[in-house]
Amino acid sequence: MPITITEVVALDVRFPTSDSLDGSDAMNERPDYSATYVTLRTSGSDGLEGHGITFTTGRGNELCVAAVKALGPMVVGRTLPSIVDDFAAFWYELVGDGQLRWVGPEKGVIHLATAAIVNAVWDLYAKVEGKPLWKLLVDLSPEALVRVIPFRYITDALTPDEALDILRRQAPTRAVREAEMREHGYPAYTTSTGWLGYPDDKVRRLCREGVAAGWQHFKIKVGVDLAADVRRVSMVREEIGDDRMLMVDANQAWDVDQAIEWMRALAPARPLWIEEPTSPDDILGHARIARALEPLGIRVATGEHAHNRVMFKQFLRADAIGFCQIDSCRLGGVNEVLAVLLLAARFRVPVCPHAGGVGLCEYVQHLAIFDYIAVSGSLDERVVEYVDHLHEHFVAPAIVRNGRYVAPTAPGYSITMRPESLRRFAFPGGEAWTAAVGARAGR
Amino acid sequence: MPITITEVVALDVRFPTSDSLDGSDAMNERPDYSATYVTLRTSGSDGLEGHGITFTTGRGNELCVAAVKALGPMVVGRTLPSIVDDFAAFWYELVGDGQLRWVGPEKGVIHLATAAIVNAVWDLYAKVEGKPLWKLLVDLSPEALVRVIPFRYITDALTPDEALDILRRQAPTRAVREAEMREHGYPAYTTSTGWLGYPDDKVRRLCREGVAAGWQHFKIKVGVDLAADVRRVSMVREEIGDDRMLMVDANQAWDVDQAIEWMRALAPARPLWIEEPTSPDDILGHARIARALEPLGIRVATGEHAHNRVMFKQFLRADAIGFCQIDSCRLGGVNEVLAVLLLAARFRVPVCPHAGGVGLCEYVQHLAIFDYIAVSGSLDERVVEYVDHLHEHFVAPAIVRNGRYVAPTAPGYSITMRPESLRRFAFPGGEAWTAAVGARAGR
Repeated sequence: MPITITEVVALDVRFPTSDSLDGSDAMNERPDYSATYVTLRTSGSDGLEGHGITFTTGRGNELCVAAVKALGPMVVGRTLPSIVDDFAAFWYELVGDGQLRWVGPEKGVIHLATAAIVNAVWDLYAKVEGKPLWKLLVDLSPEALVRVIPFRYITDALTPDEALDILRRQAPTRAVREAEMREHGYPAYTTSTGWLGYPDDKVRRLCREGVAAGWQHFKIKVGVDLAADVRRVSMVREEIGDDRMLMVDANQAWDVDQAIEWMRALAPARPLWIEEPTSPDDILGHARIARALEPLGIRVATGEHAHNRVMFKQFLRADAIGFCQIDSCRLGGVNEVLAVLLLAARFRVPVCPHAGGVGLCEYVQHLAIFDYIAVSGSLDERVVEYVDHLHEHFVAPAIVRNGRYVAPTAPGYSITMRPESLRRFAFPGGEAWTAAVGARAGR
Repeated sequence: MPITITEVVALDVRFPTSDSLDGSDAMNERPDYSATYVTLRTSGSDGLEGHGITFTTGRGNELCVAAVKALGPMVVGRTLPSIVDDFAAFWYELVGDGQLRWVGPEKGVIHLATAAIVNAVWDLYAKVEGKPLWKLLVDLSPEALVRVIPFRYITDALTPDEALDILRRQAPTRAVREAEMREHGYPAYTTSTGWLGYPDDKVRRLCREGVAAGWQHFKIKVGVDLAADVRRVSMVREEIGDDRMLMVDANQAWDVDQAIEWMRALAPARPLWIEEPTSPDDILGHARIARALEPLGIRVATGEHAHNRVMFKQFLRADAIGFCQIDSCRLGGVNEVLAVLLLAARFRVPVCPHAGGVGLCEYVQHLAIFDYIAVSGSLDERVVEYVDHLHEHFVAPAIVRNGRYVAPTAPGYSITMRPESLRRFAFPGGEAWTAAVGARAGR
C-alpha cells in the first residue's frame, strides 16, 4: 500500500528572542524567531510523519499558519508516490492554484507556506527512503533531478538540457566528494558575533571566542550609524587579524547611492561582501552597487529575501551578486532551491546559503552538501552561515565542529522538533508565552 | 477635537463569479472575485468611517483579512492629523514593522492588506475634507504631495526634487485640465468582451455591442492555445475594424522566448500591447520581449502584479514596459501609487491603470484623473481599464459614458459598499454562499 498523506497540521511556534537582542539588525529591531511548523500525518506504520517549517520573526507567523491551512486540501489524500513520481507537477499545482496565486504569486506569505509544505514532503520522502535529505538527492540521477525542478520562467537562462549537462559533468565524481563530506563536513561562518544590539565589549569577546573556536569567517551587522559602523568593522578586523574573512550585512537599510558611499567608508576593513545593501527586489540597483564596489574588492551578496527562482535568474544574469544566498524557506522548498543551485552553477557564482533563525541551519546543511557533491563540485569561496542558537529544540540538530557543518546522518530533512519545545513555545498558549506575559505585566 | 481611529474591522466578502466564467484567463481559471473590506471606525460625528479594500480572487482572501488584523494595532488610537501631517512616516511604519516585514517585505498578502488600510485612511481623509479623492490630491501643493510619497529605494531614479519639478511644471495649468475632466471624463477601454472562457459567438456579440456603445479599445485574453488565439484575435479585429485598438493579455502564461514567438504569430492582428507576457517578477525578461516586439509595433504592458515602486522603477529604467499598469491594491495604497505615477512621468511612459475585479474601477478613476491633472498633463495613449460587473455593490459606483469614466463627485475614494451586499456576500456565512453550497450539493 502506498503511503497516503491523511492530514496537514500547522502549528504557530515562537521563541521570545527579542528579550536578548539576538538577531537584531538594521531592519529587524526586536525579532521573536518563529516557525510555522507543518506535520504531514500519514497512513504509514509507526506514526510516520513528514515535518517542515517556514521561518518568520514573530508577528505574521499566524498568516503563514493560515496559508498552510489554505494549501492543505491540495495535499491531503495524495499518496507519496503520486507526488514524487512527478514532483514538478505537484509543485506547479501548489503555486498555481487559480485563486490562491493572486495573493502571491510565488512570493510573501503564500510562498513561505508553500516552502513549509514542500519541505515536509521531502522530509517524508527521505524518511521513507531511510536517508538524510542530502543523500536522497545525491542518489537521484541527473535525469531524475531535472524532473523535480520547476523550469517555468527560467528557460531563457537555463534549459532542462543545460541543467542535465551540469549534473552529468559532476556525476562520475560524486562518490569522492561524498566521502569528503562525510569525513570533513562543509565549511561554515558565524554570525553570532556582531548583532547590532550588542555592545562593543561583547562583540570583542565573541570575536576572540570565535577565533579560539577555529572560525575563519565573521559577519557583522551594519547600516544604522556610519561612524559606529566604521568603529565596529575596524574593531572586528583588529580582533580577527588580517587573514580571516570579514563580511558585513546591511539588511536592506540603504538606497542605492547611499550603499555605495557607505561601503566606500567601510572598505579599509576589507569586507569580502556587503550583504543586502538595499531593497531585495532591486536587481538593477544591486547591479549598480556591484559595479561601483568591484574596484574596492567588495562583492555583493543577497538572497535571503529573494523570493523565487525568477529573481535569482535576474540577479545572476545582471552580474548583480557575487555570492548567491539561497534561503530554504523563502524559496518554495527543495524543488525551487534545486533550480537556483543550477542557475548559480550556470553563471559560476558560489552559493553561500542563508541560515540562522529557527531551523535554517538544520535545513541548509543538506542543500550545501548536495550542491558540492552533485552541482558545483567546488568549495572555493563557499561557506554556509551558522548561528548558534535554538538548536536545542530539534531532535537531530545541526552540528558544527572546527568551523564546519558535520554531514547529517539521520533520515529526513533534520527539521523534526522536540515535542516539549512545540508545547512550551506554542503561541500564544505555550508556557513560554503565558509566563512572559505575566513577567512583562510585572515590569 | 481631532478625529481618532477607534477600531479597524476587516470583512471577507466574496462574489461567486466562477459560476459564469467572468474573469477567466490563462492563469485564473475560476476566480471568485473577492474583497477584504476594511472599515476604520472613528470618533467623528454621524458614524464617520473610512473604507478601503484589497481585491483578491477568492481563496486567500482570508489571509488578507488576517493580515489587516495584524496591522490594525498600528492604526487604532491614531488621530487623522497625526497620520496625514506626516503621511510618508505613517506609511513607513506600516511596511516597516520589525516583525511583520519578514513575511513581505512590501509584497504578497501583507502588502495587499497594507493597501486596504492605507486606502481606507485616504477615504476617511477625503470624506473629512468633503472631496472626492482625486480632488483632494489635486488641491495639494507639489510640496505637500512630495511629503506623502515614500522615496525609500527609488532615489537613484527619482529624487524628491525631481518629483517636485514634475509636479510644479503642471501646477499652473491644473485648473484647465480639472475643468476638462469634469466635463468629459477620462478615456476607458473594455475587457468585458474577451474572457478566455467565452465561446466565439459570445465574443463576437460583445464586440458588436461594444462598438455600438462607443468603445475604441478592446482587450482579449490569450495564452492557452496558439491556434485558438490566432483565430480569436483575427475575429475581434474583424468585428472592431481597422481603426479601433486591440490589446491582448496573457496573464503570465509564457516563458520569455515563448512569449516572443507567440506574439509574432498574433502580430498580423496589430495588437497595441501584450499584457503580462511572463512572470511579473521578470524585469529583464520583459525587457527582452519588449526589444524583440518593438519592430512589430507591439509594446509590452504590465503592472497588475508588480508589487511595489521598486519593481516599477526597474521596469521603467530597463525600457521593459511601454505602458505602466498600476494596481490600486497591489501597490501599498495611494502613497506608493503616487510614487509610481511620478516615476512613469520621469521615464515618459503612459500610465494605463489595471481595473476590473471588485472595486478597482471605482479606485483607479481617481488615480487616472489626478495623474492627468497634476502629473502627466497628457491623455495621449492613456486609457483606463473598465470591466462592467459588480458595480451594483457600491454606494457610489464608477460611471462610464461614451467610453469615458465620469469624474466622481461624492466625497471619499468611492469604495464604500452597500450594507446589504456586505451581508449577502460575507464569506462563508452570507446568504449567497450558504445558498450556493446547497445548490452545489444538489448538482
